[in-house]
Amino acid sequence: MKKDIVAVVLAGGAGSRFWPITTNKLLLPFLGSRFIDFSVGDVLPREVARMVIIASSDNKKTIDSMKFGVPSVTVLQHRPMGMADALLSASSELQHCRLLIIIADDLLDKNILTSVAGYAKKDTVFGALPGWKAKTYFPGGYIKRAQNRIVEIVEKPGEGKQPSEFVAISGHYIADSEELFKELRATKSEADDVYERALSSLMKHETFQMVPYEGSFVSLKYPWQVLSVMEHLMGTRLRAHRGKNVEIRDSVIIEGDVYIDDGVRIFEHTKIVGPCYIGKNTIIGNNNLIRHSHIGAGCVTGFNTDITRSYIGDNCWFHSNYIGDSVIEGDVSMGSGTVLANLRLDRGEIVSVVGKNCVNTRRTKLGAIIGKNVRIGVNTSIMPGVKIGSNSMVGAGLVVSRDIPDASKKLL
Amino acid sequence: MKKDIVAVVLAGGAGSRFWPITTNKLLLPFLGSRFIDFSVGDVLPREVARMVIIASSDNKKTIDSMKFGVPSVTVLQHRPMGMADALLSASSELQHCRLLIIIADDLLDKNILTSVAGYAKKDTVFGALPGWKAKTYFPGGYIKRAQNRIVEIVEKPGEGKQPSEFVAISGHYIADSEELFKELRATKSEADDVYERALSSLMKHETFQMVPYEGSFVSLKYPWQVLSVMEHLMGTRLRAHRGKNVEIRDSVIIEGDVYIDDGVRIFEHTKIVGPCYIGKNTIIGNNNLIRHSHIGAGCVTGFNTDITRSYIGDNCWFHSNYIGDSVIEGDVSMGSGTVLANLRLDRGEIVSVVGKNCVNTRRTKLGAIIGKNVRIGVNTSIMPGVKIGSNSMVGAGLVVSRDIPDASKKLL
Amino acid sequence: MKKDIVAVVLAGGAGSRFWPITTNKLLLPFLGSRFIDFSVGDVLPREVARMVIIASSDNKKTIDSMKFGVPSVTVLQHRPMGMADALLSASSELQHCRLLIIIADDLLDKNILTSVAGYAKKDTVFGALPGWKAKTYFPGGYIKRAQNRIVEIVEKPGEGKQPSEFVAISGHYIADSEELFKELRATKSEADDVYERALSSLMKHETFQMVPYEGSFVSLKYPWQVLSVMEHLMGTRLRAHRGKNVEIRDSVIIEGDVYIDDGVRIFEHTKIVGPCYIGKNTIIGNNNLIRHSHIGAGCVTGFNTDITRSYIGDNCWFHSNYIGDSVIEGDVSMGSGTVLANLRLDRGEIVSVVGKNCVNTRRTKLGAIIGKNVRIGVNTSIMPGVKIGSNSMVGAGLVVSRDIPDASKKLL
Repeated sequence: MKKDIVAVVLAGGAGSRFWPITTNKLLLPFLGSRFIDFSVGDVLPREVARMVIIASSDNKKTIDSMKFGVPSVTVLQHRPMGMADALLSASSELQHCRLLIIIADDLLDKNILTSVAGYAKKDTVFGALPGWKAKTYFPGGYIKRAQNRIVEIVEKPGEGKQPSEFVAISGHYIADSEELFKELRATKSEADDVYERALSSLMKHETFQMVPYEGSFVSLKYPWQVLSVMEHLMGTRLRAHRGKNVEIRDSVIIEGDVYIDDGVRIFEHTKIVGPCYIGKNTIIGNNNLIRHSHIGAGCVTGFNTDITRSYIGDNCWFHSNYIGDSVIEGDVSMGSGTVLANLRLDRGEIVSVVGKNCVNTRRTKLGAIIGKNVRIGVNTSIMPGVKIGSNSMVGAGLVVSRDIPDASKKLL
Repeated sequence: MKKDIVAVVLAGGAGSRFWPITTNKLLLPFLGSRFIDFSVGDVLPREVARMVIIASSDNKKTIDSMKFGVPSVTVLQHRPMGMADALLSASSELQHCRLLIIIADDLLDKNILTSVAGYAKKDTVFGALPGWKAKTYFPGGYIKRAQNRIVEIVEKPGEGKQPSEFVAISGHYIADSEELFKELRATKSEADDVYERALSSLMKHETFQMVPYEGSFVSLKYPWQVLSVMEHLMGTRLRAHRGKNVEIRDSVIIEGDVYIDDGVRIFEHTKIVGPCYIGKNTIIGNNNLIRHSHIGAGCVTGFNTDITRSYIGDNCWFHSNYIGDSVIEGDVSMGSGTVLANLRLDRGEIVSVVGKNCVNTRRTKLGAIIGKNVRIGVNTSIMPGVKIGSNSMVGAGLVVSRDIPDASKKLL
Repeated sequence: MKKDIVAVVLAGGAGSRFWPITTNKLLLPFLGSRFIDFSVGDVLPREVARMVIIASSDNKKTIDSMKFGVPSVTVLQHRPMGMADALLSASSELQHCRLLIIIADDLLDKNILTSVAGYAKKDTVFGALPGWKAKTYFPGGYIKRAQNRIVEIVEKPGEGKQPSEFVAISGHYIADSEELFKELRATKSEADDVYERALSSLMKHETFQMVPYEGSFVSLKYPWQVLSVMEHLMGTRLRAHRGKNVEIRDSVIIEGDVYIDDGVRIFEHTKIVGPCYIGKNTIIGNNNLIRHSHIGAGCVTGFNTDITRSYIGDNCWFHSNYIGDSVIEGDVSMGSGTVLANLRLDRGEIVSVVGKNCVNTRRTKLGAIIGKNVRIGVNTSIMPGVKIGSNSMVGAGLVVSRDIPDASKKLL
């Protein structure tokens, strides 16, 4: 058994809950990189010698082409059938090694992974997990401890029945891959909890330590979580920057940290309030107000546009729009006067239909979520939380209060 | 009989014509004070030694707590049954004194009341009234004079039949309260004109003088008259002022007299054209145009808002709205793109339904009149003169051309 | 036969295809003058000694009052029956002279007419025509040449069958009016091509030369062509200018050539991008963006208006509108939030109904075309290419996707 750690990255999730966004969530661009650059590349501890990425058919090709600073190999997970299945599908690449298991959906702090990986030096410790101190009840696995070690992971105990205030999150150190695999193969479950059951079983005779974590924890499952990820990354990884051939007119006001990429032009009587990211060659028009937003490359925001706390992909065209708390994948245009409403009249939390379920987004401020290549006419009103599928057209003067499927023509 | 005058203030009107505004009209805030501060407190002549205010159940408690510079007592008028009834209900407080009868609805010039009260020095004069030179026919009581004294008040004579060009308005000096009360008790009428008949009767044997008045005369009966009151008060009582902790960004342009209260913040590329009043802690957003308007405390006007000749109460939230010639009581929010239209396509005078009557507002420019605690969605159009009852919700993308009752949900 | 040339101007067209614009197209104001000033007055070569204008009942009176720099006489063409008929109706004014035949609809380069007229010095040449090198197929008369002279004009040969790349456009020099008239009288045709047939017939025994022309060629038949004319004239005849009593506020930004006539006022935080023309006493409001547009006299653009590549006549009132690629004749007002959409969702070329025909405007960007004296409410959306007849009212919150006849009331 080697001393160096192999990071095994779970990146093969189906992502069906991410509609109408068509880009694989791990590949979604942020700050000129991709989500997985931040959730994996940026946080790898020094102890990691190589990396095995368990990818999906959606992202394997792109991930193959990426560099994460350590030698890496990509394994295709054919069926999205849970964490145990994913790990076992890569077992031939993970023989007799120390593991650091990373869920690529979760945006972690580098320090926490470094602390977890630090247990590789302690031969008496078999496993280590970050324990996130959740401020409110979180539907995850809670850590039960006794005599200063973890004795069990209790899946979704229900509010008030938590064995501690700590939730087990991504970043698991396991000293011996073979022992984990043996346990995974021996564990049977009807539910999607084979991995957690195997871990709890190992805890009965092996020592597991918890690394407490009190920071923010952001995961990317639902498309509205793009906004939390954006907010987190702009708050922690963005720095003020002026690229080459940037043109900023005299009366423009820039407050806070704003990353302005090459070739960006910003026109008169406009204000930008950071943190903001503005991608290559994007044009910010006259009399705009841009706040706390991430705008991709090749966009034109037109006259009198107001973009607030929103994620905008590449090549979008706006013109006298209000875009608040919204996610727009890219290649989207909106006519003058169209508004993405971001607040219910009753100020209630906004519920979103995901597949056949209604999911409470826990947000009182949420605008629209719009897939790729969508055209919206003038003076249209999109109600809070509405999702619009890619390749759709939405006519002028409409009030849209339900999701619109992919490739729709909604003109009346 | 004492030489000093007792001001008797008629403040007990029912105010049913003031819907959808819920605040008692005499208590409506203007320039940080209330309407009655201007219609009564500001105009009292020096000769007034004490004041009896005949209040309604709506305003008595608040009026009790107010100070007007002279000792005052408040009497509750149980039934809103006319001026004679109101005066008689306070007769025990008004024994054997000189009276100055003030209708609290009417906004008078201080000079005119001082001139009227000046007749207290002339023992030969029993009564004095201001006569307002009306430029066009006014449906009030016209003053008939002979041998340099008033001989009769002719109620609503009809256009072309006026006995003079002078209308009797508020601010009546009467030398002996007991003689007035005796006459009021003796006068019978089916109509609501006992007081005027009693006065005309007294004129047969007592000397009444008229004080001519050529200025503007503003009365507060209908809610759209809030705009005339606002215009009058901002034109005559407002002075430029900068409060404490005021923040005005560099590119802001302020023209004319603007009263800016403590804690106000005004953001970039905004212009304010006085006279304007801006209440405590209100935030005027970026790229706004605010003209000739009265904005209460704790408001946020958001990006790109245009407020013109409008009265806005406290705690309102706007965002890319046009608000022209409108009255908004307070706690009202509007979504982006919502417009209060203020001009008919045919440029005609705007008619308003008040109770069961259609009342011509005599205004060609009039926006909406909105009660307290109303939420309006995005891109909605409210037609000129529409009134919206308090505690209502109005959806997005609507065209609203009729009044909306209190506590309505109009979403489609 | 005299040596000097008589210009004969064909100005009698019916203009039925110009609806909803009511002004005769030759009299439409541009840059403070009229279209015919540019299509005729500006381009006359020195050789022209006098001018005969064949006018219609719509424009004769005004043309009679105009001055073009040479003595001119106006002849009324009673019936709009084609070019041959028009010329013959003026034959008594055109006896025994050299002719320069000018179609007043066509906007020509002065140099090209000067070159054509230069053939008057060459006695061997009977006629000369400009040949416009069309970049794409143009439905006109193509010039067929042999041995360095024109031998025929082939009317609308069909794409791929052109005898050359040159189209015969306005500006025909004819050495002997009598010979032309003789030929015109002798030519019979069912179609409207008597003139072209007569010319082709003359070409059999007389020498005709072609003057090649590679510049732009703009003609005014359809109302959307006002935009091409505007663009052409602003690109070639407009110079930067500041009139008397012009008021331009500090934060206003003016780029490029902008003609600002007397009494114009431009308010704060506004940007104007030339070429632009702004007529007398027009007020450009706060926070506007005006680009590449022609705005008449006495207009008020209000707050937050965006006018792009549009022709606006006199006395228009706007307020927070987007007006893109549109033609507005004059005396038009729009409520706040009304948008003239100028791009189809599918980016297709915009088709317009003219009489009973659908005409492809060949434009992907075209807004509305609006006649005189039209009122439009707030938050209304006019779809690309829609035409609105004069004296109409269009209500609030509408989506207008079909033409609206003259004197309509469309309120729902």
